[in-house]
Amino acid sequence: MRVAIDAMGGDHAPSQIVKGALAAAREWSDTELLLVGDTAQIEPLFEGNKPANVTIVHADDVIGPDDEPVKAVRRKKRSSMVVAGTLVREGKADAMLSAGNTGALMTTGLLIVGRIDGIERPALAPMLPTMDDVGMLALDLGANMDAKPEHLAQYAVMGSIYRAKVHGMNNPRVGLLNVGTEAMKGNELTKAAYTLLEQAPINFIGNVESRDVLLRNCDVLICDGFAGNIMLKTMEGTASVVMRGVRDAIMSSFLTKLAGAIIKPKLASMRAKMDYKEHGAGPLLGVNGLVLKCHGSSNDQAVKNAVGKARTAIQSRLVEAIASEFSRK
Amino acid sequence: MRVAIDAMGGDHAPSQIVKGALAAAREWSDTELLLVGDTAQIEPLFEGNKPANVTIVHADDVIGPDDEPVKAVRRKKRSSMVVAGTLVREGKADAMLSAGNTGALMTTGLLIVGRIDGIERPALAPMLPTMDDVGMLALDLGANMDAKPEHLAQYAVMGSIYRAKVHGMNNPRVGLLNVGTEAMKGNELTKAAYTLLEQAPINFIGNVESRDVLLRNCDVLICDGFAGNIMLKTMEGTASVVMRGVRDAIMSSFLTKLAGAIIKPKLASMRAKMDYKEHGAGPLLGVNGLVLKCHGSSNDQAVKNAVGKARTAIQSRLVEAIASEFSRK
Repeated sequence: MRVAIDAMGGDHAPSQIVKGALAAAREWSDTELLLVGDTAQIEPLFEGNKPANVTIVHADDVIGPDDEPVKAVRRKKRSSMVVAGTLVREGKADAMLSAGNTGALMTTGLLIVGRIDGIERPALAPMLPTMDDVGMLALDLGANMDAKPEHLAQYAVMGSIYRAKVHGMNNPRVGLLNVGTEAMKGNELTKAAYTLLEQAPINFIGNVESRDVLLRNCDVLICDGFAGNIMLKTMEGTASVVMRGVRDAIMSSFLTKLAGAIIKPKLASMRAKMDYKEHGAGPLLGVNGLVLKCHGSSNDQAVKNAVGKARTAIQSRLVEAIASEFSRK
Repeated sequence: MRVAIDAMGGDHAPSQIVKGALAAAREWSDTELLLVGDTAQIEPLFEGNKPANVTIVHADDVIGPDDEPVKAVRRKKRSSMVVAGTLVREGKADAMLSAGNTGALMTTGLLIVGRIDGIERPALAPMLPTMDDVGMLALDLGANMDAKPEHLAQYAVMGSIYRAKVHGMNNPRVGLLNVGTEAMKGNELTKAAYTLLEQAPINFIGNVESRDVLLRNCDVLICDGFAGNIMLKTMEGTASVVMRGVRDAIMSSFLTKLAGAIIKPKLASMRAKMDYKEHGAGPLLGVNGLVLKCHGSSNDQAVKNAVGKARTAIQSRLVEAIASEFSRK
């Protein structure tokens, strides 16, 4: 297996990316890692100990976090992200991963790697944390804010295949993010999507409410990018405010401070559990190759985990399964 | 001042509604309360002690929580909600309030009370809790899930007038609910609305993120009903899950249980602070008369508070101010 890694993308690139790649290379000797980026910056990070299964693929340009995605991908052909995408398209890598500009990565998927026949729009599908630690796949949480009902229906099919193939989940429950559980709830988009989802080859359980997402009210959550991001950011902000309130309560007396020593580690672990940033890489589903998006703040551990995810997805033949489903239409 | 109260709407109608009206009548002797509903059910609740400023207006029909709004308002002319709306339209009441079916109340506002000239669509504008206890007016959080950019711009003007007139707030900050604070963030709706909001006669501070709503990142939050409801329900669910985790942490040892006795009341008060249901009645802005929606689970205290809000809004001449602003267009 060959996994191309955009060594220059993300807040902690290239050092943490390279460190994570090194750890992955040591863990999985059957996997060849192609580190794409500026050789002059990457090479010294190995301090002369580059494992045999790591190759540096030189790319002298970088797409920055503020670059306009489509323009950047079209013009920066020698950027680390576009070069990594090209390796996938040309079959020289089985997967690519990047912690760089999300919009640019989606554009790389679309324009460089290419869509699977029959897919109207690829979707970014990260795992959201749930209190039972199983997690929920949510899509689209990418850079496309608006979606059509047909897009949501395709997201549902792709998400179901992902959970079945990569997570070995039997008959994953698909829910449509909505403001109520009744069938005709919602806006024009969700009402039209509901009808399509009922007809799709999935286990559609109907509308689900954002209030119960942390309790894993479904296994695949379908939403447009705008609603999904509103939900994620509300979760983050609410958890943060409540935790701050709890901290203040703990600091209020001698006894509570004592007890705080016991309570705090439990709270910290709950907090970590709820932090979707820590849940690693999400696939860009619907493109003709494996593309994984790591969070911008990914450290070495996150990069190593992402390589592990890429391995599982390659072995499960995920892309082939999605292509086969949509070729039948 | 005369305030019409739908005595039959809400989970605890008519008993809690009547009890609240009684408390309000005793507190404000200058206010005449018109209790609209089934005399046979309402009269006995006074146990012979009906204050002089309370009048029962008989209405023998009721709109239920599951009634289809438009159909119900059109057909149930003798329902307590429609009769209360008619009192406002005919100038026999200065305001009405109801804890009944939200969609039906919005329809009553639209079809019975009528729109203010120039307003395309009325909006429900409840106060959301914020950690500083000041609160934030958010609209639309009503039954209209979809909105056009022009609607959002009108919501912003109405919401600003409400906070200025009713809350005495100087130059309230208007924010557009979005997935990022940069100007061109968001979906097609928010992008188009942004441009209109920049031109509106308001203090527009730009896009605001749902993660900071509890910290009162603006005074008037503009959103479509779908996004707003997703946000509210995510807040509710996340707060509930985190609180449950904290409770479990408190129960984990003898010392933490002891400390819990001190921490718990503080947590309960924070929880109450965050519960938007407790923040009482929200106005339906844009209709040609004062219409207040109380939460379905309103108890007597909530009803009494709503009467107090109605009094303030009547005294501030809110409806006249909105009508005057839009007649200039």
